[in-house]
Amino acid sequence: MIQNLFYVSWGVCPLSHRHLQLLGPRRSVLLAGVGSRSLTSPLLSSSNRALSSLSTTRRGLPKEKMSENGMMSRAKVLTIDTMNPTVKKVEYAVRGPIVARAVELERELSEGMKKPFSEVIKANIGDAHAMGQQPITFFRQVLALCSYPELLSDSTFPEDAKSRACSILNSCGGNSMGSYSPSQGIESVRQDVARYIERRDGGVPCDPDNIYLTTGASDGIVTMLKLLVCGEGATRAGVMISIPQYPLYSAALAELGAVQINYYLNEEKFWSLDISELQRALDEARLYCNPRALCIINPGNPTGQVQSRECIEDVIRFAAQERLFLMADEVYQDNVYAEGCQFHSFKKVLFEMGPEYSETVELASFHSTSKCYMGECGFRGGYMEIINMDDDVKAQLTKLLSVRLCPPVPGQALMDLVVNPPQPGEPSYERFIKERTATLSTLAEKAKLTEQVLNTVQGISCNPVQGAMYSFPRITIPEKAVKEATQPDMFYCMKMLEETGICLVPGSGFGQREGTYHFRMTILPRTDKLKILLNKVQEFHLKFTQQYS
Amino acid sequence: MIQNLFYVSWGVCPLSHRHLQLLGPRRSVLLAGVGSRSLTSPLLSSSNRALSSLSTTRRGLPKEKMSENGMMSRAKVLTIDTMNPTVKKVEYAVRGPIVARAVELERELSEGMKKPFSEVIKANIGDAHAMGQQPITFFRQVLALCSYPELLSDSTFPEDAKSRACSILNSCGGNSMGSYSPSQGIESVRQDVARYIERRDGGVPCDPDNIYLTTGASDGIVTMLKLLVCGEGATRAGVMISIPQYPLYSAALAELGAVQINYYLNEEKFWSLDISELQRALDEARLYCNPRALCIINPGNPTGQVQSRECIEDVIRFAAQERLFLMADEVYQDNVYAEGCQFHSFKKVLFEMGPEYSETVELASFHSTSKCYMGECGFRGGYMEIINMDDDVKAQLTKLLSVRLCPPVPGQALMDLVVNPPQPGEPSYERFIKERTATLSTLAEKAKLTEQVLNTVQGISCNPVQGAMYSFPRITIPEKAVKEATQPDMFYCMKMLEETGICLVPGSGFGQREGTYHFRMTILPRTDKLKILLNKVQEFHLKFTQQYS
Repeated sequence: MIQNLFYVSWGVCPLSHRHLQLLGPRRSVLLAGVGSRSLTSPLLSSSNRALSSLSTTRRGLPKEKMSENGMMSRAKVLTIDTMNPTVKKVEYAVRGPIVARAVELERELSEGMKKPFSEVIKANIGDAHAMGQQPITFFRQVLALCSYPELLSDSTFPEDAKSRACSILNSCGGNSMGSYSPSQGIESVRQDVARYIERRDGGVPCDPDNIYLTTGASDGIVTMLKLLVCGEGATRAGVMISIPQYPLYSAALAELGAVQINYYLNEEKFWSLDISELQRALDEARLYCNPRALCIINPGNPTGQVQSRECIEDVIRFAAQERLFLMADEVYQDNVYAEGCQFHSFKKVLFEMGPEYSETVELASFHSTSKCYMGECGFRGGYMEIINMDDDVKAQLTKLLSVRLCPPVPGQALMDLVVNPPQPGEPSYERFIKERTATLSTLAEKAKLTEQVLNTVQGISCNPVQGAMYSFPRITIPEKAVKEATQPDMFYCMKMLEETGICLVPGSGFGQREGTYHFRMTILPRTDKLKILLNKVQEFHLKFTQQYS
Repeated sequence: MIQNLFYVSWGVCPLSHRHLQLLGPRRSVLLAGVGSRSLTSPLLSSSNRALSSLSTTRRGLPKEKMSENGMMSRAKVLTIDTMNPTVKKVEYAVRGPIVARAVELERELSEGMKKPFSEVIKANIGDAHAMGQQPITFFRQVLALCSYPELLSDSTFPEDAKSRACSILNSCGGNSMGSYSPSQGIESVRQDVARYIERRDGGVPCDPDNIYLTTGASDGIVTMLKLLVCGEGATRAGVMISIPQYPLYSAALAELGAVQINYYLNEEKFWSLDISELQRALDEARLYCNPRALCIINPGNPTGQVQSRECIEDVIRFAAQERLFLMADEVYQDNVYAEGCQFHSFKKVLFEMGPEYSETVELASFHSTSKCYMGECGFRGGYMEIINMDDDVKAQLTKLLSVRLCPPVPGQALMDLVVNPPQPGEPSYERFIKERTATLSTLAEKAKLTEQVLNTVQGISCNPVQGAMYSFPRITIPEKAVKEATQPDMFYCMKMLEETGICLVPGSGFGQREGTYHFRMTILPRTDKLKILLNKVQEFHLKFTQQYS
């Protein structure tokens, strides 16, 4: 039921005109599963509604009405019309209506319903373990030891796993992962994160006091945006985000009531970032809001590009000149596949640009346990590093975080292992390296495979997947289909799901230049499955194109 | 350093008049540890500040200035004056300046500094494991098995722990806790929660679709408040909270820009809730805001009372009549110690009141893995059940939660174990019951002990700790001390910390009737330590009273 509800009532009204349009020519089929419950409130029959208008509270709101069986029945306190309006504006396509329909299709298949496919393949979300990627053994050994310290006397566990577990437990109150950590995160973990950053950035110093452990990267990003929003009307805070973007950003800005300032990545140049486009977007935005921050995702989500060092320098210079707070989402820092591409952290480049920049430009950068070779999304581990933040604001940040007490301690422990993995000479080192290398090289193969196969299809054109975990190919949708559906890419993806069982996310969920259409597809399915998936996409696209030509 | 910063700059200005007043007569001593970094920005010398006013951006903000060495230096983008004003209003005493000072004192002790005490005892927060409470063996065995499934072939683990781990892993994508769960939480866990609620409430039905797993109870409470806020000026949403309250509520309301409507618990009647007081608070609030919700904490935090069934009925009737959304914070549902007291869930009472109420009153109730006999705060597990929520609002809630992807999966697994513990006949049953009973009966003893000892002290009067984990005694502060400090209870607690090493939270952090003073003290320290602590409190109070009489 909830899936049906979703599909039709994700927007404000259960069945708005916009939704009907969006459904396109197949609307009658798609709506077949919608029950009456989502169309009328269970408490309000039509006669009730008439009655309810007769009785009002002192504030003019409908209060009570007599139902048909004579019982007093009350209008809801919390309705779509009286709820927080900013929440209604939030959209998050990665888990939107298509995914809800995919879950429903899975259920229908399991109930024996006949479909043109035997399995739903979810290529909508960067959820590596769900797609079969195996966890790093060492990480899980340490987590088991921390969960149940009796295992410390078990001789089958390697000594380095035990010593790592002891050091984590020693940093926990009462030596238990069940105690709260400091709000900013366990101190020894923050120290390990700082040392990791120093190694990664070739010795650029990192102060553990600038590290905040978070509940996944999302938590850190939302928290930073929360600090930045202020103002009303023409002085309302604006935040620059790339288009295409990861919809966490648009969702958070909508909820916080901030202005989303779009800058477009250059699809023709491998989704690169042009400073002239940043300038255009900023200059236009200054007319109606107060631009305060610039968000960058590198390697890119959903677009998979890896930024060059020069480009990062330009962005930093731009932020300095235009007085923008920089937010660098670097959760894919280990996911770089293309030859000639390399990950450069914003922090490192900033410090190499000299004190004029390194002592002034305000930067927050984000990392997570969910991506890279770990893919440990479920643990919700992450950190952010803040550079050049005003001391008073920092105190406010720490205070704000104290209200939510602390990030999950198992996620903190996992983050510690990611930044402090087995070292050469330790018993777990070889196995760790073998597992990490295997995962990353498989991902690199799949990135290449995806690009290659998609580019063989007429009407699909795919930039190289230089990094991250997604392809974001451009698709040509025939005029006839464009005319029939309000959101042609949503229509395309929904049709693909219904006909092939493949769950993708339409480009409109990430943003795209008007008149262009895309989808995001993860490269995470096992190689054999990915080949099947790519073939099916190919077949579907040809069929779809024929049908609407 | 960060602790120093905290201590002086938790408010808006590093050293506001209010802070100096608050520190009272010992201010000179307390400020001794404050470094220069918190008093002046590292980037702004006084000459810089003068220069900065000469150069402004097109929006009239200071932009760049020449520093003494001729380098361009920029004013911060994000300052205390330009940050989100609602964040500045947030306060959270449980982890406020007193705790920051306690952490600092611990460090000073460890560095060999001489103090009038040898150990800091943190009785400020309900952090059971940090105070030495042991985790439930069965829970930790299952978590270890889920973290590292290789252990499933280890014969030392009991079979019921293994089968529970298998069933949790089977509900995870790719059989891994590292995959994202559905945003609402793992379906089988929600089903187990629903069955637990049905058992707890004597068969009142519970729909798993109404269960949302959360990141601790705090996450659920903030999310529900987020849905409820709306409006501006005189129609701004208001939320009724008890005074004294748990400061998560006031912090969340401040951040969301909602109106906090205080109703006072009756200290003379064991901190009970009077409907007439609810009515007074509501009637007054209707003049300046739109009251939408009523929050209840039962068993009470910080006040430890357990509500009677009659009182809950009255509250439900009041909410129905006044059209208020009910929020029941029931995280201490197993923590009931006093004879004659019993936990009644709002859900059960609501359904026993018949369809006039059970089919109309909107209720959200919250539970957590952090309290009761588990005390697993670090895992951030929790759930909420929503009753009679409008279907469209529910769809919006699920959408909103999808942005943060999912609650931590280890916390979900733990919540599953709490609602589905070992059953009679299973190998782990006896040990589980023994551990649970031991923890709860020790807590009951400590509740009694705390009340008894505190009531022997002249000038301290403590209501029975019927439930939860805290005493909230009233203290008499001599006139002279009241005159010297702006926040006399903060002054009292800070002085106690400096002289005895005991860390308590002043009553003002929770709210109290004007002219009355309290502190919150957990009953969690080990019995032997608790006795020492209570004796020290006694001694301190006598000395303090003499000093200021």
